[in-house]
Amino acid sequence: MSKTFEKLQPYLDKSMALQAARSLFEWDDETAAPYEAAEYTSKVIGILSNEYMDSLINDEVRKLLKKLQEDKEQEELTETEKAIVKELAKIYDQLESVPPKEYRAFNELTSKSSRIWAKARKDNRYEDFAPYLNQVIDYKKKFASYRAKKGKKAYEVLLNDFDECFGIKELDEFFNKVKENLIPLLKEVGHKADTIDKSYNFKSYDISKQKEFCRFLSGYVGFDFNRGVIAESAHPFTTQLHNHDVRITNRFIEDNLESAMFSIIHESGHAIYEMNIDDSLTQTLVGGGTSMGMHEAQSRFFENNIGRSREFWEPLYDRLVNTYPENLKEVSLENFIKGINKAAPSLIRTEADELSYPLHILIRYEIEKMIFDGEVNVDELPKVWNKKYQEYMGITPPDDANGILQDTHWSQGEFGYFPSYAIGSAVAAQIHYHMLDIMPFNQYLLDGNLTPIREYLKDSIHKYGATKNTNELLKDMTGEEFNADYYIKYLREKYQKLYKL
Amino acid sequence: MSKTFEKLQPYLDKSMALQAARSLFEWDDETAAPYEAAEYTSKVIGILSNEYMDSLINDEVRKLLKKLQEDKEQEELTETEKAIVKELAKIYDQLESVPPKEYRAFNELTSKSSRIWAKARKDNRYEDFAPYLNQVIDYKKKFASYRAKKGKKAYEVLLNDFDECFGIKELDEFFNKVKENLIPLLKEVGHKADTIDKSYNFKSYDISKQKEFCRFLSGYVGFDFNRGVIAESAHPFTTQLHNHDVRITNRFIEDNLESAMFSIIHESGHAIYEMNIDDSLTQTLVGGGTSMGMHEAQSRFFENNIGRSREFWEPLYDRLVNTYPENLKEVSLENFIKGINKAAPSLIRTEADELSYPLHILIRYEIEKMIFDGEVNVDELPKVWNKKYQEYMGITPPDDANGILQDTHWSQGEFGYFPSYAIGSAVAAQIHYHMLDIMPFNQYLLDGNLTPIREYLKDSIHKYGATKNTNELLKDMTGEEFNADYYIKYLREKYQKLYKL
Repeated sequence: MSKTFEKLQPYLDKSMALQAARSLFEWDDETAAPYEAAEYTSKVIGILSNEYMDSLINDEVRKLLKKLQEDKEQEELTETEKAIVKELAKIYDQLESVPPKEYRAFNELTSKSSRIWAKARKDNRYEDFAPYLNQVIDYKKKFASYRAKKGKKAYEVLLNDFDECFGIKELDEFFNKVKENLIPLLKEVGHKADTIDKSYNFKSYDISKQKEFCRFLSGYVGFDFNRGVIAESAHPFTTQLHNHDVRITNRFIEDNLESAMFSIIHESGHAIYEMNIDDSLTQTLVGGGTSMGMHEAQSRFFENNIGRSREFWEPLYDRLVNTYPENLKEVSLENFIKGINKAAPSLIRTEADELSYPLHILIRYEIEKMIFDGEVNVDELPKVWNKKYQEYMGITPPDDANGILQDTHWSQGEFGYFPSYAIGSAVAAQIHYHMLDIMPFNQYLLDGNLTPIREYLKDSIHKYGATKNTNELLKDMTGEEFNADYYIKYLREKYQKLYKL
Repeated sequence: MSKTFEKLQPYLDKSMALQAARSLFEWDDETAAPYEAAEYTSKVIGILSNEYMDSLINDEVRKLLKKLQEDKEQEELTETEKAIVKELAKIYDQLESVPPKEYRAFNELTSKSSRIWAKARKDNRYEDFAPYLNQVIDYKKKFASYRAKKGKKAYEVLLNDFDECFGIKELDEFFNKVKENLIPLLKEVGHKADTIDKSYNFKSYDISKQKEFCRFLSGYVGFDFNRGVIAESAHPFTTQLHNHDVRITNRFIEDNLESAMFSIIHESGHAIYEMNIDDSLTQTLVGGGTSMGMHEAQSRFFENNIGRSREFWEPLYDRLVNTYPENLKEVSLENFIKGINKAAPSLIRTEADELSYPLHILIRYEIEKMIFDGEVNVDELPKVWNKKYQEYMGITPPDDANGILQDTHWSQGEFGYFPSYAIGSAVAAQIHYHMLDIMPFNQYLLDGNLTPIREYLKDSIHKYGATKNTNELLKDMTGEEFNADYYIKYLREKYQKLYKL
């Protein structure tokens, strides 16, 4: 065992404990904490966050890291240790490049700008948010420039923070396919959307029955209630303290059947990934999912590829009808499957269907690129935004609240994040076709037996945590690296079948 | 402002943040965390606990503390800062006296011995627990001896950890009064207990209605839901992150009306104390209640002095009857008041009524004294225990599970803790008589207006946090230090009236 790594261990353990505490505070804030707690609790969280930083970024760890990166030291490391050292180097690269004073100022700015954004969206006043957005962008450009070696573009740096496998080249290629294929497909599908009657979805659904059915669904797809809990929050999310404590939230809308059902399947997908990470990796720097994109692939695989399929609902639909007979007894399984897959151009990303969703992401990707290439200034963004929605979706937002102000990400400086959502869907499609090839996938769904599917995901992806990157996982699992053609094929086949195009 | 204190501040802030994190983990463990999380989470909690210790016990803080205790430095301190320095000195006295190696060994022992105790109680095998109890006692004796200056007894040292105002002399005096007066009173009352029909209490009470009524009761006595939350746990308790985030739990038993109602009033009393502590004190070392005894005084004042009074229920009882008309419509308010105050000798402390409760504590106090005076060895304890129950209560436990094994405290090394429970009741009685003197106390209860009562408690006790000790608070509030005569008087008057003795 490496003596040097041994010396590093207490620092890693401390950072892990502080990170777990931060996760618990975040969870608690969203699900349990009283209304007036925030002001005082933020003092606690601020100190814990500083301690977290200090536990990793300090002279002793810097020295150990440098030593561990030497060839001779590398030889003594296990594969997991090597992955941890690599991850630590990445953290140093991200954080050490920024002068602490600037980093603090940036955090203060984003804390303020996200409040300003929330109010601006409510008031439909982009002009109130614009000056803050401008400052956030300036900081992100500056921070990226500190790290942009060898002529790397600023946006490239930001993208790689979310997934080292996806830079501008890869995403340009991906989004070109999306643009070329999915814009015409959505147009075609959108024209037929009116033939689908989805009125059942907007009847009144008793909340306590929704809760019970969603809990059942979560367990059905594989959420382990001995290692996880479900609570309620304003927006569904997943968090974890470690692989034996994974938590998801849901929210319930009385006149919307789908919303909570597909949210819980989505979050269960995230949770199953985290629960399946190997015991030897949890509570280390490589003990979480490997990338935003791969995480989103798991949640969307469960939500869409599995959860919106006819095979999934075949053994379940009677149970759903019997839960709400007054609303559903006249709705056939066939109509229900059409309903949950109804697709049409839309304005709001978070409410978009599976087909229009990637176009929302495409628009954000193109705009983020323009921002970081200096091709557009902040004041022009609403115009650019609306123009792209008209061009790609055929609709124009009636106001900025339903347009450029809809997402919180930019107010928090999260540029380069959006592409992960679309990458996730594409990875899910690639995994899906592979599994259709190698196992009686649809028969498993028809039998209500998701265990072999989950076990295969565990053995091919989940258990590795962040020790392999997205492409390494895909290559080892499917025989090829990321390939967006499966995604296009999946959506085309699906909607051709549904709409008899 | 004191430069030296300023240097201390970051250490205090850090310890406060880590303490808040520990409280949140504890709360979460009891109310939310999944079943299998404990093993991995304990690693997190262990590290946070060590960090907490390190944040306070280190060379720099030791140096600053020593300096701050000098006369010249004291002159520059505010009253709050002086109290903080005093509290810090107390922590150093408690923790620094014990060699770290022994402290760790002790913590490992108690972690083990509390598991052994739980199993021994379940199996009714005291002999399995005895060797561990013996070791725990040896450690406590040794630790106390490190700190016992000037011939102070070991038990005295332990008692003072819970309240500096109550040592052996004060408690001997107190418990002698309890013994002399309450044993004969309980005998007298116990003979008449059969004349009270309490069968209504054990009918079936819908849990969701119980929850709703308990939530109402909590708000009625003054729990502020903007600054606190209620959850469920196996045993009711109160915890807090600061004065704007105070949390209580409750548990519900279907065939017991009283259990959850009086638990929630009790915990609300603890919570109101913490919520009322001044903003300038919260998140400091003196930002909690001043002592176990004073805390218990607040919870018991609300539970018993207020919550079991006829005046409290007069405006509320109709609401209770209307909540469960099928069970209560035949039960008069008078019979209900008799029922909730029914008293008789009992075996189990946590289920005891207001009158027999202090006798349970008396027995534990006498036994703890014997243990630390070396007058009894561990093997003889069950015999001593049973003899005292026979002598004071007139009943003998049928087995050790219902006798000496019933409480967890000793397995965790908590000796000197029990007296606080009885002290709390006695302080509550003293406060009660004082308030009857200076305000239309009962009229407030009849009017359903508890605000003036709560405000007075806030201004006389709560807001000071731990900057004044129990006797200082009582003296400033009532004009005299602790006086147990009020307690005897209160119980005698109460039961004479109820039972027409």
